Amino acid sequence: MSSISPLNSKSLAFVQAKINNKTKPVGALGALEPLALQLALITGQRVQKRSGIHLTEDDSSGQISINNPAMLVFAADHGINENNVSIAPSAVTEQMVLNFLQGGAAINCFCHSNDIALTVIDCGILRTISHDVALRAKAEATSRVNFIEQRLGAGTNDFSVKAAMSTLQVKQGFDYARQLVNEQVNQGAEIFLFGEMGIANTSSAAALMSALTSSSVRDCVGRGTGITDEQLAKKISLIECALQRVEISGHNVNNLTEDTVIELLSELGGFEIVQMVSAILTAATANIPIVIDGFIVSVAALVALRLDENVADYLIFSHVSQEKAHQLLLDKLMSAQKITESSSQALLNLGLRLGEGTGAALALPLIKASASFYNNMASFESAGVKV
Amino acid sequence: MSSISPLNSKSLAFVQAKINNKTKPVGALGALEPLALQLALITGQRVQKRSGIHLTEDDSSGQISINNPAMLVFAADHGINENNVSIAPSAVTEQMVLNFLQGGAAINCFCHSNDIALTVIDCGILRTISHDVALRAKAEATSRVNFIEQRLGAGTNDFSVKAAMSTLQVKQGFDYARQLVNEQVNQGAEIFLFGEMGIANTSSAAALMSALTSSSVRDCVGRGTGITDEQLAKKISLIECALQRVEISGHNVNNLTEDTVIELLSELGGFEIVQMVSAILTAATANIPIVIDGFIVSVAALVALRLDENVADYLIFSHVSQEKAHQLLLDKLMSAQKITESSSQALLNLGLRLGEGTGAALALPLIKASASFYNNMASFESAGVKV
Repeated sequence: MSSISPLNSKSLAFVQAKINNKTKPVGALGALEPLALQLALITGQRVQKRSGIHLTEDDSSGQISINNPAMLVFAADHGINENNVSIAPSAVTEQMVLNFLQGGAAINCFCHSNDIALTVIDCGILRTISHDVALRAKAEATSRVNFIEQRLGAGTNDFSVKAAMSTLQVKQGFDYARQLVNEQVNQGAEIFLFGEMGIANTSSAAALMSALTSSSVRDCVGRGTGITDEQLAKKISLIECALQRVEISGHNVNNLTEDTVIELLSELGGFEIVQMVSAILTAATANIPIVIDGFIVSVAALVALRLDENVADYLIFSHVSQEKAHQLLLDKLMSAQKITESSSQALLNLGLRLGEGTGAALALPLIKASASFYNNMASFESAGVKV
Repeated sequence: MSSISPLNSKSLAFVQAKINNKTKPVGALGALEPLALQLALITGQRVQKRSGIHLTEDDSSGQISINNPAMLVFAADHGINENNVSIAPSAVTEQMVLNFLQGGAAINCFCHSNDIALTVIDCGILRTISHDVALRAKAEATSRVNFIEQRLGAGTNDFSVKAAMSTLQVKQGFDYARQLVNEQVNQGAEIFLFGEMGIANTSSAAALMSALTSSSVRDCVGRGTGITDEQLAKKISLIECALQRVEISGHNVNNLTEDTVIELLSELGGFEIVQMVSAILTAATANIPIVIDGFIVSVAALVALRLDENVADYLIFSHVSQEKAHQLLLDKLMSAQKITESSSQALLNLGLRLGEGTGAALALPLIKASASFYNNMASFESAGVKV
């Protein structure tokens, strides 16, 4: 279903030399240097595909282009929360979506302060809110939030007792997100940031991580926004129960068929996770860099990786969250990056545990700074600096 | 000489409650939350002093205000580099200042991308460049760089054999920087970022750190922008030599007289470090938050702390650099913060080792994001969210 082009390794030496010849000691900009390399290769790939022009060794005009950053926040509810595995009732998902639309959430503040267009997608929260015409108008006019409804249902089933959704719903979610991302690409988005909202979605994410890696449930589960020891034990036990039903043990997690991945998503997934998987694959197919937020979005990236390993080089890891399993997951995703070796750690480590895409939004200025030094900084030659 | 007001601890509970009542789990914004607390207390202190209005418990209108961010980059040369303790000759300081004025350096890119006004100050590089009228015009018009000359000499003396400068020069530097910062405050700067450029200035900074803490020279010295083992051994030996001459051992480093600190600055300092010490004290006196860049600026902050311990709560630590002693120094500075307890680690850890104020410039969007969530995010009550 996905066909992501690997990054062009022929441009690597040229781009690296351009970075090394900027007026600074080699490597002095730390993590921003491999990030610039990655952005330059992705932009080069996109320009090449769209225009037929190849980046060559003597082409010094190639600039990084990451205009019109687009944040997509995918929201959904989770049947597993009937077992009280979160600090909050599922109704809070809808309340927070309303908060997004009224411009009052952290992600609104950070998108506003970093000049990011915000779109909120109802992938299947408990109750539809599309009837509220006045609210939608206010979201667009006052809060500058775009609201889209592509619901796969009214929350998933409780995946501890049965499949969260059907494989048909998974495929419908893939179609929805592919169309949405392609529309935004056509409107000029050159970098995507993905975030999510869904009470109890760390349970679904932890189950998928365990099913798609060789890690135990215990290693994949954390306290989300802050559950008790008792809730944590229950969360682990419910996920272990679900994984026994799914019986994926014995599969080689690095070599799954597309059908198996889709089945795992239907068994364990959330509606927002399903749509993020497809959004990530679609963005990478269009050669657009993708800024990954916290644990849930990282799990969606892991699922995407199992469907097309070439997606890895298009991923930028914005932050490592407080959620216990996030660093372990990031290590797995980073080790899948082939050409750029861009990431040995996420850009930010601020102790965030909010989701909504907040970490991704906060990291965007660093990504823009990388592009800025690559595009605009003088070379030793042009500046007359002789070290 | 300095009279910095401590932050008002009476406002602490009110400000913390406001942060806790934002629509997110308590603490979910990690390091941005104590940062917002610090910024709110500093702004409150400033408003109170200027208007006579006190922040009180029931005053919910207090907003953080950090408009017109101003980056001051202090440049100077160092006699110690006659001993070849850097990867570059001292002439590179001038070349890099010219690069700043032409808009080609990393700090130009990052100030531009983060909307920061950039001022470069010649505190005493080897050769004056003020005669170049065309260059100055270009700096102001094209590169949007303000260039100021307040030279204390043509580079310092080699501090391994004699005092780097006289105490009169130190006092002149204090006056220069105080006037400059006060002018910028009068022009509306509500947050300062300080950076530096000076080949070999890590030697001077390491000597001052060792003299003003109980740390050995070996613990205070690093490789700067990348010197060899042989250069490193020489750097250590030259600094140890200077410290023997200064004979500060036996002094209680936490209880130095102003005269002693000024003498230490004259013995070991650089012209840019001297001016930064005064700039930091002046900004804090005006109740303006100060974003600290890398190792050299952090040493200036340490000197400022020895002159007025109340400066600590006005400092924001932007990043921990690759320079070996920087984390150790940050730990000392952070432990001096009284009310805010804002910092257990710097905001960024990107492996930077460039100076110029680049880390401070890169951290500014995080600081603005903190202000933005504090000022604009909904409360649970206003958003109708019931967790």
